[in-house]
Amino acid sequence: MAGDHAREVPKVSDAVKNLGFAATAKIDGDWSVERVLDQVSDGPSLATGSTSPLPFFHLLERLKTTQREGWRRFGISSCESISDHMYRMSILTFMTPPALAARIDVNRCIKMCLIHDMAESLVGDITPVDGVAKPEKNRREAATMDFISSGLLGNVYGGVPGRELREIWQEYEDSQTPESLYVHDIDKMELLLQMYEYEKRGNHEIDLGEFAYVATRITLPEVKEWADELLKEREAFWSEREHVQGNKGVDGGVEDDVRQQQNEYYENE
Amino acid sequence: MAGDHAREVPKVSDAVKNLGFAATAKIDGDWSVERVLDQVSDGPSLATGSTSPLPFFHLLERLKTTQREGWRRFGISSCESISDHMYRMSILTFMTPPALAARIDVNRCIKMCLIHDMAESLVGDITPVDGVAKPEKNRREAATMDFISSGLLGNVYGGVPGRELREIWQEYEDSQTPESLYVHDIDKMELLLQMYEYEKRGNHEIDLGEFAYVATRITLPEVKEWADELLKEREAFWSEREHVQGNKGVDGGVEDDVRQQQNEYYENE
Repeated sequence: MAGDHAREVPKVSDAVKNLGFAATAKIDGDWSVERVLDQVSDGPSLATGSTSPLPFFHLLERLKTTQREGWRRFGISSCESISDHMYRMSILTFMTPPALAARIDVNRCIKMCLIHDMAESLVGDITPVDGVAKPEKNRREAATMDFISSGLLGNVYGGVPGRELREIWQEYEDSQTPESLYVHDIDKMELLLQMYEYEKRGNHEIDLGEFAYVATRITLPEVKEWADELLKEREAFWSEREHVQGNKGVDGGVEDDVRQQQNEYYENE
Repeated sequence: MAGDHAREVPKVSDAVKNLGFAATAKIDGDWSVERVLDQVSDGPSLATGSTSPLPFFHLLERLKTTQREGWRRFGISSCESISDHMYRMSILTFMTPPALAARIDVNRCIKMCLIHDMAESLVGDITPVDGVAKPEKNRREAATMDFISSGLLGNVYGGVPGRELREIWQEYEDSQTPESLYVHDIDKMELLLQMYEYEKRGNHEIDLGEFAYVATRITLPEVKEWADELLKEREAFWSEREHVQGNKGVDGGVEDDVRQQQNEYYENE
C-alpha cells in the first residue's frame, strides 16, 4: 500500500481510531432495509436505481467493518470481520481435493463463499443471543439480497450481475446442490480454524471449544477429514488442561441451553 | 455465526482483546522467511512438507490479522485487514462491465484478486516509510510465495493447487496479461473507495486525499470511469472545505517528497 512518507502517527479522536469498526443498526420493532439505511446514513450514499455500481461497492465496506459476533462475545473485541471470514473460505475452496473438484464447479463455489454472508452488510451477524428466530433472520437476509440485486444493482449492466449474486445466494440458502452443501461445510471449517487459532495465540487464556460443535454438522467426508485433523491439533494443544470439547456436546462440557440454541441455529443447514 | 447464548461479555486480558491484530515480524538485517517464521511461532504450526493443507490454512489467518498500514499511519488503528481489501476487490470484478468481461477471463481475475497480496501474510504491508526498496520488497514476496507453493503446499494434492497460486501471483507481478492489468486497476480502485469511505464516516475529521494519487495510475477506461465518479463524489463531500487532492499531485496539496515516494512505489506497476 502506498501513500505514506516518514512521519509520526497523528493524534486523532477516538472516532477516527475506530473508523474500522461500525456498529450494526439496532432496530426496535419491525426490521426493514429502509430503517437500517436510515441508521447508516453517515456513510457514503447507498442510493437505489443508479446505473453505476458505486453504491453497491460502498455497501460492501460494511462487510469489513462488521465483526463476527461469536468472537466478540468471548471478549475478542478486535476480532475478524465478515469479509475476513468469506475471504479465507474462498481460498479453502482453491484447495478442494481433486476427486471432489472433479465432481463440482469450483469456480461457482468460490463465488458462493464470497457471496453467502453478503446480507450481513445490513442485517449484521445475528447470533442466538439476539433473540431473532431463524425464519425472521432468513427474511431479513432475503430482503437485503433483494435490495442489493434490484435496488442497488437493478439498473447496473442490465441487472445481470445483480441477478447472478441473488441466484448464487439463494442456491446457498436452499442447500440442495453439491456446491452449496460443500460451501456450508467450508463455512464451518473456516470457523473451526479461527477458533483454534485464537486459542493458540491466546496461550490457553481463552477456550472457544463451544464452537467445536459445528464439526458434527459437516457432511462431506473431504471436509470432515480436514476438521478431524484440526480438532486433533487442538487436542494436542490443550493436552492435559481442562477445556471444552464442543464436538462432544454436553459430554464435552457444553451447557444444555447452549446445545439447544446451536441445534436450532443449524437445523436448516 | 453460532455458538453463543445469553451472557455478558467476559472480562479478558488485553492480549485476548487484541487477538484480532498481530504485529508484522520485525527483522534486523537480512530478511528471510525462516526468520519471520521464528517470530510468529506463537501461532499454529506452519510446518512444511505436509500432505495436508492445514498449515497453509493457518498461514492465511495472518491476512486477517495484518492491517493495511497506509490507514494506520493516519491514526485509524482499527482499520481494515489485507484480506478485507482482497475480498472487496474480488467482488468489484464480479461487476466487470460487459464489454470488458467479454475480452478477459473474469474467473481468473477473481482468483488473482484473492491471491495478489497473499505474500503479505509473512512480509507485512510494506510502505515507502519502511525504507525497503522495491526490488527487496519483490524478493521477499517471491520468497514467501515459494514458501507457500513449495514448502506448505508442495506435497498437497500433487502440488497442483500450490503451483496454480504461484503462477497466478507471478502473472499479477509481471503485469503483462489483460487480466493482470485489470486487477492492478482494481487494486487502486478499492483503495480509492476505502479512502473516501473513511473520510465520509469520519465527518471531515480526516483527510486521506494523498491516496487519491493512485487514480492517475489507473489504465483501463472502464476502471477510470469508476474512479472519476468516486472522486466526484469525494469533491462534493469536501465541497468548499480545504482538502488534499492527491490526484492533482503537488498542485492538489501533496508534498514533493510524498509525490516522489509514490512515483517510486508505482514505477513498475
